[in-house]
Amino acid sequence: MATEATADDATDAPEAYEALLDRARRWNAIGSAAGVLGWDQQVMMPEGGTPARSKQLSALSSVKHDMLTAEETADLLEALADTDLNDERAAVVREIRRKHERAAAVPVELVEEISEASSEALPAWEEAKATDDFDHFAPHLERHVELKREYAEAIDPDSDPYAVLFADYEPCLSIDRAEAILTELRETLVPMIDAIRDSDADLAVDTFEGTFPVDEQEALSRDALELVGYDFSRGRLDVSSHPFTSGNQFDCRVTTRFDESDPLGAIGSTIHEFGHAQYNLGLPKDHWGTPLGESRDLSVHESQSRLWENHVGRSKPFWELFLPTVKDRFPQVADATVQDAYEAANQVYEDNLIRVEADELTYHLHIIVRFEIERDLVRGDLAVEDVPEVWNDKYEEYLGIRPETDAEGCLQDIHWSHGNFGYFPTYSLGSVMAAQLYAAAEEAIDDLEGAIAEGDFDPLHEWLAENVHRHGSRYETNELVEEATGKPYTADAFVEYVERKYGELYAL
Amino acid sequence: MATEATADDATDAPEAYEALLDRARRWNAIGSAAGVLGWDQQVMMPEGGTPARSKQLSALSSVKHDMLTAEETADLLEALADTDLNDERAAVVREIRRKHERAAAVPVELVEEISEASSEALPAWEEAKATDDFDHFAPHLERHVELKREYAEAIDPDSDPYAVLFADYEPCLSIDRAEAILTELRETLVPMIDAIRDSDADLAVDTFEGTFPVDEQEALSRDALELVGYDFSRGRLDVSSHPFTSGNQFDCRVTTRFDESDPLGAIGSTIHEFGHAQYNLGLPKDHWGTPLGESRDLSVHESQSRLWENHVGRSKPFWELFLPTVKDRFPQVADATVQDAYEAANQVYEDNLIRVEADELTYHLHIIVRFEIERDLVRGDLAVEDVPEVWNDKYEEYLGIRPETDAEGCLQDIHWSHGNFGYFPTYSLGSVMAAQLYAAAEEAIDDLEGAIAEGDFDPLHEWLAENVHRHGSRYETNELVEEATGKPYTADAFVEYVERKYGELYAL
Repeated sequence: MATEATADDATDAPEAYEALLDRARRWNAIGSAAGVLGWDQQVMMPEGGTPARSKQLSALSSVKHDMLTAEETADLLEALADTDLNDERAAVVREIRRKHERAAAVPVELVEEISEASSEALPAWEEAKATDDFDHFAPHLERHVELKREYAEAIDPDSDPYAVLFADYEPCLSIDRAEAILTELRETLVPMIDAIRDSDADLAVDTFEGTFPVDEQEALSRDALELVGYDFSRGRLDVSSHPFTSGNQFDCRVTTRFDESDPLGAIGSTIHEFGHAQYNLGLPKDHWGTPLGESRDLSVHESQSRLWENHVGRSKPFWELFLPTVKDRFPQVADATVQDAYEAANQVYEDNLIRVEADELTYHLHIIVRFEIERDLVRGDLAVEDVPEVWNDKYEEYLGIRPETDAEGCLQDIHWSHGNFGYFPTYSLGSVMAAQLYAAAEEAIDDLEGAIAEGDFDPLHEWLAENVHRHGSRYETNELVEEATGKPYTADAFVEYVERKYGELYAL
Repeated sequence: MATEATADDATDAPEAYEALLDRARRWNAIGSAAGVLGWDQQVMMPEGGTPARSKQLSALSSVKHDMLTAEETADLLEALADTDLNDERAAVVREIRRKHERAAAVPVELVEEISEASSEALPAWEEAKATDDFDHFAPHLERHVELKREYAEAIDPDSDPYAVLFADYEPCLSIDRAEAILTELRETLVPMIDAIRDSDADLAVDTFEGTFPVDEQEALSRDALELVGYDFSRGRLDVSSHPFTSGNQFDCRVTTRFDESDPLGAIGSTIHEFGHAQYNLGLPKDHWGTPLGESRDLSVHESQSRLWENHVGRSKPFWELFLPTVKDRFPQVADATVQDAYEAANQVYEDNLIRVEADELTYHLHIIVRFEIERDLVRGDLAVEDVPEVWNDKYEEYLGIRPETDAEGCLQDIHWSHGNFGYFPTYSLGSVMAAQLYAAAEEAIDDLEGAIAEGDFDPLHEWLAENVHRHGSRYETNELVEEATGKPYTADAFVEYVERKYGELYAL
């Protein structure tokens, strides 16, 4: 009997499974078409194109939503619920089921209300920031908190609402693990930055001071991409106001931006986006449009960008390799040593109030302030009107500096004007994961530093492809990290890395 | 009773009408999203992106097809069939009904078969052309003829199949009128080109001989677009292997291509595409996504590009205006006079075998050869195996030259490898219409030539916007031409134009 039932199930399963995959491929093709439109909008579209673009994107999004939540999708998932599937197929069904259930749980009216609230909040935030007037933005923030609590309630009325929102960005990582990691970060970094402030170390911070023409910076960004092995037959480098990566395993494009007085900024951004692109380009081509051909979530994606940006792009061996190219483009730095470049690229800005201008260390305290505030807002433990003061208190406590205005305080970031609560922590979680992955790669690869100094990135590419990229969304986040590193996902490797690196740099 | 019924109808009508419009807006948003992906594919996409792009485009096309042919669409059209609608609404329903019926008539399997046949025919055509081997392409052409006859039969078994295929590109123009126009063209142009061959006129054909660097040509194309009034806040100029225009009233982009030895080619292409773009940019914004906000069909579109390319861009007043700019970019032509430039831009290449390199006159005989051959193929009056000989005979008869190879004969164009029968004539029909529209504009506008020579294109823009662009697809083709020019659509104005212009140039 049991055997017969299994046999029957096995016969049924692939059919429903294939039908589900076909549907998923179709809605993902629509979703990835929307991605191309998004790239175009930020990189190529003339300003007048906005009204048509909004309607195109909204039509695509609604078609995709309809396919995802359709009865046929629900029926196929139902048919597969009690079926024995192999691990890969089970993972595919798990991923599709999660997306389906989440999309189906939220009433369309609420989604539209949130989208309208964002449309209204965005210009209000822009004005509030420009005029340093938090009260102008406060009602919109209040509205977003209410709507997002409703949204969380629709998805899971029994859960902590912040955990539900966090799962929009990190469906496969528990909020408890995330909090534990952020807490360990805070406890490590607050005293470390304090010690750096008191350090007498004299870093070569002015190595890249001066004017660096944009054309040459662009050429240098291309040099850097060639060096690390970006496949231009499957990608492009363009300019946009905020650097980003867009695409899939066939065509994944990066953007960067240039500031004449800050060549390190563009190099860092370019290598960061390269890490994102390399992840997408390493996903299995055969599985395009299905969960096995999709990247895991935001923290894993950010781990790939941060690994390249920080562990490679800010390392001494990389600067050994790259500095001669920089000198070719910019003879004004002809006298700089590798140590000078390394120090300039790793200086800690202990008096900086702005997240996007932060260094590798203080960055996480900027994130932790936002995380704690948005978590308490969503949980109802903090009132919107109290945000500015709490913000400033936390900056003083964690970073030893106090913003003088809300414009350079709690109004600096766009995220809350979109109602994106739960997004910020993924930035830090990605950096932490990067450290753990890089440590494992260093252990697995014979003389990785030497290879990098010689411009041989193949061993690192292969390790990342093998241990991260090729899996798509097969594993949940912790599983993926454990499979890759042999250890559960914690902040230990990151703490070890920063203590070693900054201990040496600042003689702590 | 009648009044009540009308009142009821009136109440019902707008509801079904609005519902139909909503659906149309949605499928047109999807269609125009596909347009952006098509532009990207030809202008920006890295080569590796093809597999994902094909799937994105095929998903969008199938979603659009499903919406267009859906039962809900049929029901709404049914509900509106006997309803009194005002002229605008009746036009909207007429246009949507035509598209719906055509799409619904053709079995999906046949559409797929045609698409597969094209995928196979394209590389076969490429190879046949490269190796001058018609037999290699013949079976694919045969297959396309069969499939397209089936396709025409599915749409209307009682009609001439070529007329049905022609209606894919010109749904609002009878094949009889088209044939009459093409016949008049042939009867005018064959003897005229003969006379030009015998003419002793000595045109300044070498005015633009030499090398013209691509960067400066690109700058000159931008100069030309600025001059004629392209709105760069709603458009872009890029490079692609075949120049084209893509977009809508909010964002309409043009491309061009550059050849170092032929600066006139890029100028002509750029102004041609500008004419297309100007049409789309002039469509009413409020009606985007509905027939009132869509351009009329290919001949009308081509009339706009040809009007700008030939009647403006190849005119003496335009060269009075533009030559100083050309000289700024290319000092090597400093000695050229306006008359030199005018003669160079209007020389007739009586020994040219290649359509895309043809001039304003011989071009139409290239088209007529193709039109007569494809018409006879589809009607079953010509066998595929006889195409090369018939082609060469017709070139000899109409143009006085005989191709020595099929590569520069019947294999030169891509269109038949896509199974596109009925497309070629729209090129000539557009030129003919351009002449009729331009003559009417000249009559309506006080000293149009003077205005152009002074760089004042506003009167022409206004006339075209008022008489062509703003109508979208409200009028059928003949109606549109009659409304704009006060006369039925014929080749008369074109014949008059070329007899005057080339009579003078070649002292005929």
